[in-house]
Amino acid sequence: MNEPRVSLAQGNGGRFMRELIQDVFVRHLANDDLDTSLDSAVLDFPQDRLVFTTDGFTVQPLEFPGGNIGSLAVHGTVNDLAVAGARPLYLSLNAIIEEGLPLAQLERIIASLAAAAQEAGVRVVTGDTKVVPCGQGGGLYLVTTGIGIRMADIQPRPALIQCGDAILISGPVGDHGTAVMLAREQFGLEGDLASDSASVLPLTSALLQFDGLRFMRDPTRGGLACVVHDIVRSCQLGVSLDEWMIPVNGPVRSVCEMLGYDPLYLACEGRILAVIDAAQAAAALECLRALPGAAEAACIGTIIDSPPAVILRTDIGGERMLQELEDDPLPRIC
Amino acid sequence: MNEPRVSLAQGNGGRFMRELIQDVFVRHLANDDLDTSLDSAVLDFPQDRLVFTTDGFTVQPLEFPGGNIGSLAVHGTVNDLAVAGARPLYLSLNAIIEEGLPLAQLERIIASLAAAAQEAGVRVVTGDTKVVPCGQGGGLYLVTTGIGIRMADIQPRPALIQCGDAILISGPVGDHGTAVMLAREQFGLEGDLASDSASVLPLTSALLQFDGLRFMRDPTRGGLACVVHDIVRSCQLGVSLDEWMIPVNGPVRSVCEMLGYDPLYLACEGRILAVIDAAQAAAALECLRALPGAAEAACIGTIIDSPPAVILRTDIGGERMLQELEDDPLPRIC
Repeated sequence: MNEPRVSLAQGNGGRFMRELIQDVFVRHLANDDLDTSLDSAVLDFPQDRLVFTTDGFTVQPLEFPGGNIGSLAVHGTVNDLAVAGARPLYLSLNAIIEEGLPLAQLERIIASLAAAAQEAGVRVVTGDTKVVPCGQGGGLYLVTTGIGIRMADIQPRPALIQCGDAILISGPVGDHGTAVMLAREQFGLEGDLASDSASVLPLTSALLQFDGLRFMRDPTRGGLACVVHDIVRSCQLGVSLDEWMIPVNGPVRSVCEMLGYDPLYLACEGRILAVIDAAQAAAALECLRALPGAAEAACIGTIIDSPPAVILRTDIGGERMLQELEDDPLPRIC
Repeated sequence: MNEPRVSLAQGNGGRFMRELIQDVFVRHLANDDLDTSLDSAVLDFPQDRLVFTTDGFTVQPLEFPGGNIGSLAVHGTVNDLAVAGARPLYLSLNAIIEEGLPLAQLERIIASLAAAAQEAGVRVVTGDTKVVPCGQGGGLYLVTTGIGIRMADIQPRPALIQCGDAILISGPVGDHGTAVMLAREQFGLEGDLASDSASVLPLTSALLQFDGLRFMRDPTRGGLACVVHDIVRSCQLGVSLDEWMIPVNGPVRSVCEMLGYDPLYLACEGRILAVIDAAQAAAALECLRALPGAAEAACIGTIIDSPPAVILRTDIGGERMLQELEDDPLPRIC
C-alpha cells in the first residue's frame, strides 16, 4: 500500500504547499495570532524585557518513547526561555521536511507539537516550511524560536554564582538520551524507559520566588556534565558534585552500565539544574519536590573556591575529575 | 589535499562545537547582545508592537552570483519584516550543517551573512547549530527568525486593498530565480545575471510615508504571480496586470525564453510589490525610483472589481489569465 508522502511540490510555495500547511500545520496550531496569509506575526506586547531564543531539532528517530521531535521542539525552546527566568509566550516554527516523509507521521508530530505548546501556554504565531529532496534530510528537521518576558526582577545568570552556593537538580538525569538511544538502536531493551521531555516552566517559576537563585539551565546535549563545565568556565570557580546524590533511574543506570555510557553526559529534556544561595537550598528543594516531575529533586553539590574544574566525590570517599565532553557518545538526541 | 570539513563531533554540544561556534559564528557575528554562553538573548525593548517572522533557507547551490545562502538568510527575513511595515532589529540564526561541509565555505557564508546583517541594521542575538550526518542534509540549511517594531501607525495588509488601487513593483522580476538556476545547472550562460538579493528596508520605509499604502510583499518563492494570487484570494477581487509594464532584465528574458520559464513565476529576493491608492501611485513611484535598486520601479496594474482572478493584458490588446503556481519549475531557490 502506498501511503501518502511529502513531495517536493509541497514545498514550492504554491497551492500544494498552502494545502499542506493548512491540512497539517494550521489545523493543529490555529490561534488568533497565527495568520498564514501573512509572513510574520504582529504581537501586542507588554512593556517589559524580552527574552528571545532558538533551537534546532534533528533527533533520530523522529518518534521515541515519551515524545517525538514535535513535542521536543516545544519543550526545548520553552525550557530555554524558562531557565532564563522568562515566561514563554510565542513560538515560530520552521519545518525542513525530507521528500517522502509519511504524511501520517508528520501529522502525529505536529499534533504532538500543538499539544505540547498548549500545555506550556505558548502560541505558535508564525512559521515556514521547506521540502528538500529525498536523501537530503533526516525525514524532518524542526526549528523553534521563542519569545518570552522576564518574570522577575532577578535575571538568573552565571555572573551571580558565588562560592558556597548549592547545586540542585530537579530529577533523574539521562532519561531522554537513553530513551532515544534505545529507540534508535532497537536493542529490545525499552521496558520502562521513556524520555523526560516536558516543560520545566512550573519548576523555574517556583524557583524564581527565591531571591538567592543564581542560575538555572536545562541539561540537554552533553547532559549534566556539560552544564557544570559551562558554570566552571563562566565563573572560573570549582564545582564539587556528590555522585551518590545525583538521581539516576534504575533502567537508565542498567543500560548505561551495560553499554558503557555515563548518565551524567546524557541529555535530559525536562530537568533543570539550579544554583542557589546555600541558605535557601533546603526550602527550594522542598518547593521543587512538591511539583509534578520533581519528586526526586536533590542537592547534588556545591560551588567551591578552587581552580576551575569539576570534582566528583564518590560515596566511598574517593574523588575524580569529571571531564568535559569532547565527542558525544550519542549524537542527534535533540 | 584534504580541506577541513565539518565533522559530526562539531555538532554535539561539547568543546568541538563550542570552538566551531566561536571560530566561525561568533567571530563574524559578535555584538553586545550576543552571548553564546547563554541559550537566549534578553533584549531591551521599546514599548511598541512587535513583528515576529521566520524563514528557512535550503537554496542549492549554497553560493551563486550575487549572494549566498548566508546573505539570503538575512535578506529573506529582514524583507519579511520590512514588508510588514516594521523596522528589523534582531535575528536568531539556526544552522543545520551537513557533515563534510568545507569549513572555508561555511566561513564565507557566515561572513556574508554578517555583512548583510550589518548593512540591514539587524543584530544576530541568539542561535543554535546542529550537524547532521553526511547524506542527511544539503550541505547547509539556515533558519533566521526576526523581531522588528512597527514603524508607522498603518499596518499594510490585504484587508486594506480596494478596487482601483494601483500595483507597483520596485524593479525587474526573476533575477534571483534565474541566477540560482544557472548557477545550479552549469549552463555556461551566467554572463551578467546575478541575484537581486538585498534588503528592501529602504524601499518599504519610503512607502510607509504614504497614507494610501495598502499592502507590501516581497515576491520570493513563486514570484510575482504568487503574490498577486495571494492578493486575489485574500481580497476576493480581481487583478489586472499590464504585461508590458513589468520590468524583466534582458538576460532573464533570454534565458526564460530559451528554457521555457515564465519570469513572473521566478523568485526575487530584493524587490517589493506594493498596492497603493491610485491617487498616490505617481508620487510613490517617483519616491521609489530615487532609491538604490529601484530605478526601474513601475506601475504594473490595478485592483479591479471582478471575480477573483489575475488578468494579464498584453501590449497588442490581448488578455490571458495568469494561473496560480502548482508545481514549481525551480525548487530550492531560497
